[in-house]
Amino acid sequence: MNRDIFMELLARREFKAVRSILDVMNAVDIASLLSQLEDRELALAFRLIPKDKAAEVFSNMGNSLQSQLIDVFTEKELKEILDDMYMDDTVDMLEDLPANVVTRILEAIEPQKRAQINVLLRYPEDSAGSIMTTEYVDLRGHMTVKEAMAHIKQVGIHKETIYTCYVLESRKLSGIVTAKDLMTAEDDVRIADLMETEIISVGTHADQEEVAGLFAKYDLLALPVLDADECMVGIVTVDDAIDVVVDEATEDMSLMAAINPSEKTYFETSVWEHAKNRIPWLLILMLTAAITGTIITRYENAFAAIPLLVSFIPMLMDTGGNCGSQSSTLIIRGIALGEIQFRDLFKAVFKEFRISMVVGAFLAIANGLRILIMYRDSHLAFVIALSLVVTVMLSKMIGCTLPLLAKKVHLDPAIMAAPLITTIVDTCSILIYFNIATMVFHLTI
Amino acid sequence: MNRDIFMELLARREFKAVRSILDVMNAVDIASLLSQLEDRELALAFRLIPKDKAAEVFSNMGNSLQSQLIDVFTEKELKEILDDMYMDDTVDMLEDLPANVVTRILEAIEPQKRAQINVLLRYPEDSAGSIMTTEYVDLRGHMTVKEAMAHIKQVGIHKETIYTCYVLESRKLSGIVTAKDLMTAEDDVRIADLMETEIISVGTHADQEEVAGLFAKYDLLALPVLDADECMVGIVTVDDAIDVVVDEATEDMSLMAAINPSEKTYFETSVWEHAKNRIPWLLILMLTAAITGTIITRYENAFAAIPLLVSFIPMLMDTGGNCGSQSSTLIIRGIALGEIQFRDLFKAVFKEFRISMVVGAFLAIANGLRILIMYRDSHLAFVIALSLVVTVMLSKMIGCTLPLLAKKVHLDPAIMAAPLITTIVDTCSILIYFNIATMVFHLTI
Repeated sequence: MNRDIFMELLARREFKAVRSILDVMNAVDIASLLSQLEDRELALAFRLIPKDKAAEVFSNMGNSLQSQLIDVFTEKELKEILDDMYMDDTVDMLEDLPANVVTRILEAIEPQKRAQINVLLRYPEDSAGSIMTTEYVDLRGHMTVKEAMAHIKQVGIHKETIYTCYVLESRKLSGIVTAKDLMTAEDDVRIADLMETEIISVGTHADQEEVAGLFAKYDLLALPVLDADECMVGIVTVDDAIDVVVDEATEDMSLMAAINPSEKTYFETSVWEHAKNRIPWLLILMLTAAITGTIITRYENAFAAIPLLVSFIPMLMDTGGNCGSQSSTLIIRGIALGEIQFRDLFKAVFKEFRISMVVGAFLAIANGLRILIMYRDSHLAFVIALSLVVTVMLSKMIGCTLPLLAKKVHLDPAIMAAPLITTIVDTCSILIYFNIATMVFHLTI
Repeated sequence: MNRDIFMELLARREFKAVRSILDVMNAVDIASLLSQLEDRELALAFRLIPKDKAAEVFSNMGNSLQSQLIDVFTEKELKEILDDMYMDDTVDMLEDLPANVVTRILEAIEPQKRAQINVLLRYPEDSAGSIMTTEYVDLRGHMTVKEAMAHIKQVGIHKETIYTCYVLESRKLSGIVTAKDLMTAEDDVRIADLMETEIISVGTHADQEEVAGLFAKYDLLALPVLDADECMVGIVTVDDAIDVVVDEATEDMSLMAAINPSEKTYFETSVWEHAKNRIPWLLILMLTAAITGTIITRYENAFAAIPLLVSFIPMLMDTGGNCGSQSSTLIIRGIALGEIQFRDLFKAVFKEFRISMVVGAFLAIANGLRILIMYRDSHLAFVIALSLVVTVMLSKMIGCTLPLLAKKVHLDPAIMAAPLITTIVDTCSILIYFNIATMVFHLTI
């Protein structure tokens, strides 16, 4: 839908046309269209959305837009929207809204739903409990397929998904029946005979990354969440799992580039927030790099004697940094996807050792030849080639070890990426380089 | 399942126990258990898997394991497995198997299915066509809910998903009905009255990243794929969309760390392959860094006069590289998630300009004070502080511009990440630093 046409119709108060447009549009697209409107047009347009779509549009809006609307909603309007929203979307919204708005919302929600929401709000951020919904279809083992279908027809319309139904016996999960099983089975089959009893589930405190991993591994549409007593308390649905996969990758990439992760998009984040997210790491890294600088001053005599030595510093530092970040990136990603564990440390180190032999040899020969041809100095070529081999090997060892150690001590492995590895490797490569150079050229420090 | 117990039972030929274990295990877990077996045990164990689960286990195996099994399968066994496999899984497998195995498989598949597979195999890699399946439930508008349910009961068992059904009129897609709609509607409602006509679809040649983006945006379970004539040819299911999200993030992270992406896991990739994926970029970056080195030699007189100048090179280079990679990472991720377009270039540059003012000022003051205190040299402090501000600003400009330019000329923006940005920024920071230094200290070049 073209925004300008929509704005024009809204400005001309052609409500019938606006309503028709909103009627055929997808809720996600309406939310994005509304985000471009002026404050006073927003409430007007929102009230023209067909009733059955309003809650879905509202769920898909950003927090600032939701706040704006809540401010102008009557109690009745707010109540209607909240009644139609899924539990997990409501909790999601409440987690990010200012406290006074949260209070107003909780007051508008019916008591039973409010109690459930309060429970959900208490789960740690990024846990299975915090992203689950408590609205799922539960069946009993003694039901027949026909009875189950009748039950779903009655309660299903208000549930976020009906495609995986859960068979409960005194709140414990005894089996799973898919809608596909129900729709393709005969009417008189008992649920207990139809249900799958190999159940994949998670605890309420499981990390959301682990939850998303299970969806990817087992091709799930929904995943039951059990409490400490093994009683079923909710489900995570696949749409939330996809969001987790996307968010976790974004978070890892930010951390790997030395930025404190933000949940907002690039343009939603203000200049000050961007600066605030970036400065701490830059400062730490800058001061660490200053140490490398101090080390260089120890070799002033060396490069006073052979000034050409200085010109190879960037190449050695960069190559070391790149080699280290290659290794750390692969290990960090492997850890995130559950493919690499701490117990694989020695296997990984041995692998990186062999890779660095190949890579180091290749780079050393390429660069050694270049220097031999350009400067016709075999000693210099030897110094650079040897420094390269040692730097490559050391940086790959550091790059694969640090993320695994971070994991072991429950730090996020993603912080052990390019920026930090580069800074650490810099110091090492400078030390290696000048020590080799002083030895080969018999320089005094 | 404990691997050792399983192996022990298998070795003792206690087939009944093994079969019972396989009966209760999940197909994905069986595939992972079997991957740890010796060659000769593999075929034996596979034949003990219950018939209705064998194809699913096979689909979840790696390519080398699949090849091994195909080698020992009889024609009959192969045919049975292939008949039970979903179309998209078969195509996935065929894309990665050696040619002689592919021939044998295609011969074993029934002619009609083979024709469809051959069509699917012709779609470009990573396109919607290459990840879709042609097995979906199609309905007609004139059917009633009861007729539709009867139709699904008859054909649904062989379809990958029945949760989104497609209403076709002469091969064109006229609407979508979800299983939830069917299960909660009355028996005599017409499909044409029930169906949703706001349809989100993609073309066969759409990039899989775009496809995955639609799943995340619209919370879809399946997405219809249309050919150039707008006729429906298949669907992409949500489980494949999750795999795409994971794979694309991994691919971007690899590229961003100067590694050619691999579809295999870290430990599955051999030492030689790892080396081969890493050397090309390292070589390019190393030779580019050599240019920075050559530039440094132009300033030999400068650091012969003030050797201390050399010691600030790592700090300036690292900070410039880190600033540049922060900006480029956020822009690259924003592009991948569809949040930033090429038309936002000036908006992004202006934003980075303001951020770099804040960040640059902060770092310059911190470092200027440190140098003033450590060396009591206000000229030096001024040189470093000014160089920092200019370097930070320039590197953030470069970091945000290059990924967007890459996107414009249809290169993968992810290559414009830390390693390349760092190398480019290095040269700039050295030039900035030595020019400022020679001016302030009145040095001759």
